[in-house]
Amino acid sequence: MQRELKREALLRAAVSAFSRQGFHQTSLDEIARKLGVTKAALYYYFPNKNALLAACFDRAMSVANESLAQARNEGGNSREKLQLFLRHYLEAVTDEFGVSVLLTEEHSLDEQDRKKLFEERDKLEGHIRNLVREGIKDGSIVECDPKLAVFLLLGAVNWIPKWFSQKGSWTSHQLARAATDMLDRMLSTNPCAELVIDVGKAP
Amino acid sequence: MQRELKREALLRAAVSAFSRQGFHQTSLDEIARKLGVTKAALYYYFPNKNALLAACFDRAMSVANESLAQARNEGGNSREKLQLFLRHYLEAVTDEFGVSVLLTEEHSLDEQDRKKLFEERDKLEGHIRNLVREGIKDGSIVECDPKLAVFLLLGAVNWIPKWFSQKGSWTSHQLARAATDMLDRMLSTNPCAELVIDVGKAP
Repeated sequence: MQRELKREALLRAAVSAFSRQGFHQTSLDEIARKLGVTKAALYYYFPNKNALLAACFDRAMSVANESLAQARNEGGNSREKLQLFLRHYLEAVTDEFGVSVLLTEEHSLDEQDRKKLFEERDKLEGHIRNLVREGIKDGSIVECDPKLAVFLLLGAVNWIPKWFSQKGSWTSHQLARAATDMLDRMLSTNPCAELVIDVGKAP
Repeated sequence: MQRELKREALLRAAVSAFSRQGFHQTSLDEIARKLGVTKAALYYYFPNKNALLAACFDRAMSVANESLAQARNEGGNSREKLQLFLRHYLEAVTDEFGVSVLLTEEHSLDEQDRKKLFEERDKLEGHIRNLVREGIKDGSIVECDPKLAVFLLLGAVNWIPKWFSQKGSWTSHQLARAATDMLDRMLSTNPCAELVIDVGKAP
């Protein structure tokens, strides 16, 4: 467990450094120096930057899959499930782990890691498309192209860690809630008449 | 003019290579070799990769600003203007110039280029937020937080070149139209009851 905690702390610190200054502009040596650990300690957990990147993607996929499982349990109709998935996922990636900034670095992964990522991503996208299809059937989601719907939703959501900062005036909770409500309007058969007017003042 | 055309051809080829295999995984030498031009010719237009990247961002900003100007001319209410901006911009970036894949590479820009990009991007985002504010006033757009609305729209839109391929079953025109209609539902006070069901079969 000690080992897991240490690995986790290193992973978080690395992600934070990558997000601030870019993956390619950050060296493992620099991360080790900033964390006050020896290079040997860092290399024990992550033999190279690509291994660290693969761990980041693994984490992002786990968070997404857990959010989806939770949403499936909690939601009533499929539109609610979709909404809950987005809210949980957003709260996790903005609050805990700003990992999505790295989601454009697939090219830097080793081939095997990239293959695995693409398979898992395709599987996740398939699950979410199915939610949209089920929502069209149960009447909670408008007739639409599920493939396009999922791409647009994930694009909006994956872009958020690029501009959201926990030091800004919006909390992760406010953001996740307001963004989800706004995106929900895009697909709901019963779109709300108004949205949160000032995210920073929302409950 | 000859000079402009040559620069343009080099820029397009470079962007295409960056998009396929990643900015950091592509060398100027490789681009020159693939294009069958001498390194000297390439270096004459773009002394280094960062200059090429800055040119890509310049282009993306020009396309966005031109799309906005055109939309302002053509649209009736502010919601229509916003919709037309998205459609024109999408058609341009997916059809002509898949530049947005690079939009996460700001870290690789020289400091001066990055500063300029951020200023221009802030200006553009300000203009689009104003469109949303005007739309709320003229009753075409729902009460909402304009800042969040613009971030979500641009996220969805900037993500598209990551997954859209001209070799797929959707044309740029079909995609731009369907994506815009779907995103429009998010903010319109008069959301349509159904959307295109299969983008690849839309007119």
